[in-house]
Amino acid sequence: MMKAAVWKGVAKIDIELVPIPRPRQPSDVTVRVLGCGICVADTYILRGAVPLAKPPVVLGHEILAEVHELGADVDHLRVGQTVCVDPMVTCGSCSFCNHGTPNLCGRMRSIGFRQDGGFQQFAAVPARHVHPIRTSDRKAGVLAQPLACVLHGYDRLELQAGSDVMILGAGSTGLLWTQVMKRSTQAKLIQTETVASRRNIAVRLGADHAFDPTRGNLAGSVREIVPDGVDVIIDATGSARAVQEALPCLKKGGTLMMFGICSPGENVIVPAYEMFENEWKIVGTKMLPHKMSTAVAMLESGVIDSETIVSRALGLHEIKDGLEWLIEEPDRGLKFYVDPWLGE
Amino acid sequence: MMKAAVWKGVAKIDIELVPIPRPRQPSDVTVRVLGCGICVADTYILRGAVPLAKPPVVLGHEILAEVHELGADVDHLRVGQTVCVDPMVTCGSCSFCNHGTPNLCGRMRSIGFRQDGGFQQFAAVPARHVHPIRTSDRKAGVLAQPLACVLHGYDRLELQAGSDVMILGAGSTGLLWTQVMKRSTQAKLIQTETVASRRNIAVRLGADHAFDPTRGNLAGSVREIVPDGVDVIIDATGSARAVQEALPCLKKGGTLMMFGICSPGENVIVPAYEMFENEWKIVGTKMLPHKMSTAVAMLESGVIDSETIVSRALGLHEIKDGLEWLIEEPDRGLKFYVDPWLGE
Amino acid sequence: MMKAAVWKGVAKIDIELVPIPRPRQPSDVTVRVLGCGICVADTYILRGAVPLAKPPVVLGHEILAEVHELGADVDHLRVGQTVCVDPMVTCGSCSFCNHGTPNLCGRMRSIGFRQDGGFQQFAAVPARHVHPIRTSDRKAGVLAQPLACVLHGYDRLELQAGSDVMILGAGSTGLLWTQVMKRSTQAKLIQTETVASRRNIAVRLGADHAFDPTRGNLAGSVREIVPDGVDVIIDATGSARAVQEALPCLKKGGTLMMFGICSPGENVIVPAYEMFENEWKIVGTKMLPHKMSTAVAMLESGVIDSETIVSRALGLHEIKDGLEWLIEEPDRGLKFYVDPWLGE
Amino acid sequence: MMKAAVWKGVAKIDIELVPIPRPRQPSDVTVRVLGCGICVADTYILRGAVPLAKPPVVLGHEILAEVHELGADVDHLRVGQTVCVDPMVTCGSCSFCNHGTPNLCGRMRSIGFRQDGGFQQFAAVPARHVHPIRTSDRKAGVLAQPLACVLHGYDRLELQAGSDVMILGAGSTGLLWTQVMKRSTQAKLIQTETVASRRNIAVRLGADHAFDPTRGNLAGSVREIVPDGVDVIIDATGSARAVQEALPCLKKGGTLMMFGICSPGENVIVPAYEMFENEWKIVGTKMLPHKMSTAVAMLESGVIDSETIVSRALGLHEIKDGLEWLIEEPDRGLKFYVDPWLGE
Repeated sequence: MMKAAVWKGVAKIDIELVPIPRPRQPSDVTVRVLGCGICVADTYILRGAVPLAKPPVVLGHEILAEVHELGADVDHLRVGQTVCVDPMVTCGSCSFCNHGTPNLCGRMRSIGFRQDGGFQQFAAVPARHVHPIRTSDRKAGVLAQPLACVLHGYDRLELQAGSDVMILGAGSTGLLWTQVMKRSTQAKLIQTETVASRRNIAVRLGADHAFDPTRGNLAGSVREIVPDGVDVIIDATGSARAVQEALPCLKKGGTLMMFGICSPGENVIVPAYEMFENEWKIVGTKMLPHKMSTAVAMLESGVIDSETIVSRALGLHEIKDGLEWLIEEPDRGLKFYVDPWLGE
Repeated sequence: MMKAAVWKGVAKIDIELVPIPRPRQPSDVTVRVLGCGICVADTYILRGAVPLAKPPVVLGHEILAEVHELGADVDHLRVGQTVCVDPMVTCGSCSFCNHGTPNLCGRMRSIGFRQDGGFQQFAAVPARHVHPIRTSDRKAGVLAQPLACVLHGYDRLELQAGSDVMILGAGSTGLLWTQVMKRSTQAKLIQTETVASRRNIAVRLGADHAFDPTRGNLAGSVREIVPDGVDVIIDATGSARAVQEALPCLKKGGTLMMFGICSPGENVIVPAYEMFENEWKIVGTKMLPHKMSTAVAMLESGVIDSETIVSRALGLHEIKDGLEWLIEEPDRGLKFYVDPWLGE
Repeated sequence: MMKAAVWKGVAKIDIELVPIPRPRQPSDVTVRVLGCGICVADTYILRGAVPLAKPPVVLGHEILAEVHELGADVDHLRVGQTVCVDPMVTCGSCSFCNHGTPNLCGRMRSIGFRQDGGFQQFAAVPARHVHPIRTSDRKAGVLAQPLACVLHGYDRLELQAGSDVMILGAGSTGLLWTQVMKRSTQAKLIQTETVASRRNIAVRLGADHAFDPTRGNLAGSVREIVPDGVDVIIDATGSARAVQEALPCLKKGGTLMMFGICSPGENVIVPAYEMFENEWKIVGTKMLPHKMSTAVAMLESGVIDSETIVSRALGLHEIKDGLEWLIEEPDRGLKFYVDPWLGE
Repeated sequence: MMKAAVWKGVAKIDIELVPIPRPRQPSDVTVRVLGCGICVADTYILRGAVPLAKPPVVLGHEILAEVHELGADVDHLRVGQTVCVDPMVTCGSCSFCNHGTPNLCGRMRSIGFRQDGGFQQFAAVPARHVHPIRTSDRKAGVLAQPLACVLHGYDRLELQAGSDVMILGAGSTGLLWTQVMKRSTQAKLIQTETVASRRNIAVRLGADHAFDPTRGNLAGSVREIVPDGVDVIIDATGSARAVQEALPCLKKGGTLMMFGICSPGENVIVPAYEMFENEWKIVGTKMLPHKMSTAVAMLESGVIDSETIVSRALGLHEIKDGLEWLIEEPDRGLKFYVDPWLGE
């Protein structure tokens, strides 16, 4: 038997003793969870706001683990290997899967959403979703999934040489963007963030300037540095209002990337004449298709400072605390991960 | 002396007798105007709503002409050649011009906006804005400028093989899009238009289906044909409301191109969560950088049916009538051009 | 029992009576073969020149079939459905599969190469490789796989508005390119082909000009039509020499696509200074990742004339004849398919 | 009067006393030359191997200068401003200029090639070719032109997140690539160079590994670091042989950029089957369209270490020495610039 934190419905998570899972298919493996990041999306799920997730299920989709048991057909992994798990499980036969855009699959059954995820001691997952990683650093390993999302967004940006970039938000994902962009643009990197301590971290990790967007005139401050505005804005807040307020900072010909997941029902009001006059692009981006192994390689190479971004481990009983802190008490930490063995 | 229709201010155009212009610079030419298309933008200008234009000035930026006199430095043109005029005159030294995006130049002085355009018998224009065209068909020639705008938009679409496309509006520009797209996609081409006669023309020129967007459930009708929605929506109405209502027809992963020029002050309300969930792109496009000669080649080759799109010539005294008809009396014609010699 | 044409080694194909296959995995289906195109690559395989294929195996990778039996886990197909088969079976876990480029997988075990293909009466295939098609036309159905390869190439071209295109070769694949390009470019479409009857077909299917590349000066003839050269050259001959001889027809800034599969050992000699001076691109393209369902939709819609391209059905005993005719007797037909039931 | 080094024909440069030039057009300026980089291309020109250049002319196309006199129409510059000069003067009216690809113009009359360049004390240049730079550092300023060429190449690479990159050559241009790539890829950066001291500099400026390509098995060494090969190879040697030998290091799906200018007559032999099997791209790149101001901004911001790359100033009499050293005595320095006032 093992411990699992089962999401039972709105605001309800129970710690239960359940059997250790076995590979369900010959192409599955089971893994022993080493750590599993807590994501802002988990708070939305807990509220019942995310149709992609359905209770009862074990949440947790940012999984670092150790291979525990191999299904009969699995020959490219070995027991004991440290691995990251790509949680995006798709149908493989709808038109979106067929077009090479599995992230748009309408019949997703993702790990931590529709099938049991990482907030438990062991998990059964398809072997092809498992990516070996050469590091024993848990703080690095739990970042593979969010970093892969960032890299998918990066590819959609089609960045040109010398682009000035502004990142909205310096939470854990915003700071992953900081580090990727620091190694991607040769020009100015500006970040906005309301929490002072996070602005300091943004600058330490590579931002040239960090502003409090609630103080003074944001567009004015930005245009003092880059008079024509920035070439690229990346939203990492998930706040439609933050996006709206940043729009006047965008250069003619620029691209706004809506990376953060906004609450259903929020809107961004796009001035129609300005879309012509300024020839803007607004680009959505979703999940992490085809980017997990690139993220793993980047974490292995040490170019990402995970120590600064990942604050500390929580036990299974602290998941709800962790989710609350993410939203309500930003000074408690940038990002937490669950260690399901903590306190054993 | 020659006749010119001079825009004097809101709603005021006077026909005046003025001297025939000479090349102002050694790199200018003067041309004898053969025809000049009336554009919906001219109605906005006439109202004073377009900051790019300033009275007093001769409007008209879709010019077909004959070379009349060469400036001292011009050696690649000859008197008598039929030419189209690229009206987009830019500063050449701002950061946007320097980046190869002259259409974003902040110091534009375009022909028919800030310097005298085609609603007169002769015009002085920079020689590098003049493109020889091998056709004597006035209806074809006056389409070079709007077609070049369409082609710039086309390049920004980054169309993939097998994309289903929906065009909003079947006015003259919408029908240029019909013809370009008929030769660009191997999949479905859907068009929306409120005027029945124009829907018929859309189908004749290549649309597979033409809907009245005000009747019934547009998204429902579209998704009967393409169950996942269309890959691309191109707005050729310039109505923010038309764009808004078409958004539910867009496939996950799809692109909305805002091509039509909306009135300043109009908005498109973009649902923020759907930008993530559907991974949409919204793309603005502006004017015709680098596309005039491609448009000319396309018109020469006869792949564009201009006879159907361009209704007839008007005299200088009828410009205001033509502008009114465009907006108020769609059955009078799809597009008019001014022949400044009519009635001489 | 059923009949199968088994490739046994260099130049050796035996017709054998073997058991009708059952789904090997719960995610497999078996299909009843309706027709299977003969591909030039099959001649290379037969010679033993293609490492991707290994005897003994049933060749044939352009399969139209009917679903015969469903594996236990297959719920999105039904028995009796007409389907096309995507033959590209990849490992799903190597770095290339992980990056969304399964066509580069180093551990491919494709249908008709490493596992039994379509030159037999029934075949077992993974359900996710099966694409329903709404047509009973065998000549259309057997074109889905080669057309999907064309469409993958198309996406890699990143075609701009108004590009002049030249296709080398008017065999069956070259003529698929003709038809796709006729609906993709608004400018000139030129085709080269040594066989006169095929040049006529190229013109009938949409080429504006068709040249015999062995007669006269090819670059001279091409530059009479497009003085600066063509924007795009697509090789559909698989002859390095044809590619080499066409290079002088390429415009500055143009793209050469090497689509045809050349024999191992052949070379194209690229003039190094000209790569700078002319800023050319040379682009390889491989197989059909993510394009099968788009090809199916295109064939369903009737925009591809398959009647002209696919000559007739052959029986299992005629496979070697068909392969020989493809190479040696072009006047016998453009393309053949095997009907494994012929003569029953 | 002023001093000018006039190229008179093969291997012949004379220092002459000539009148200080005045603006030739109202849109010209004259500049006082502060420094002008010596480029490897100048050695080709001196031999008579570059058709773009024609004697008698003053060479030198990497110009840092001070505005000296303004033409009548120039209002966006002021006397005394420090500026970089974009040497690429194009006709503005050919099909390539019209398409936004002035670097492909067939009637170029570039500064330092067909009109007098920077190896003199003053020069007359078109005002739109002049870019103010906020630095008084001559070593930085003379790098604007070569850096702009690098940035144009960069945009043509369409780099994806996590690409492993190999740069061939660690001369001054190769080391500009090192610095741009260090800020552009989050993955491995490998450089090849025969001169040991330059390999050390490459590593100091950001390369993760630097190899001598003439020692041992290059592909073997590279594939020890990146087993699948590198995603991108950028040639900065201008040696077809170096390109040829590096090709086996390229990953399937990878891109080879031919950036260095090879001698006319050299060839790269491209294996034709591998272009299919490996789905490679080979991309040429030419000059610096639209990138001068981005290069200037990058130099102003200090992200480029010019001190290491630019060795020292030479007088007008030492130009031929400098050219010889570049080729024959790599240990004398990475790059030299001419200060036409040296020794006055």
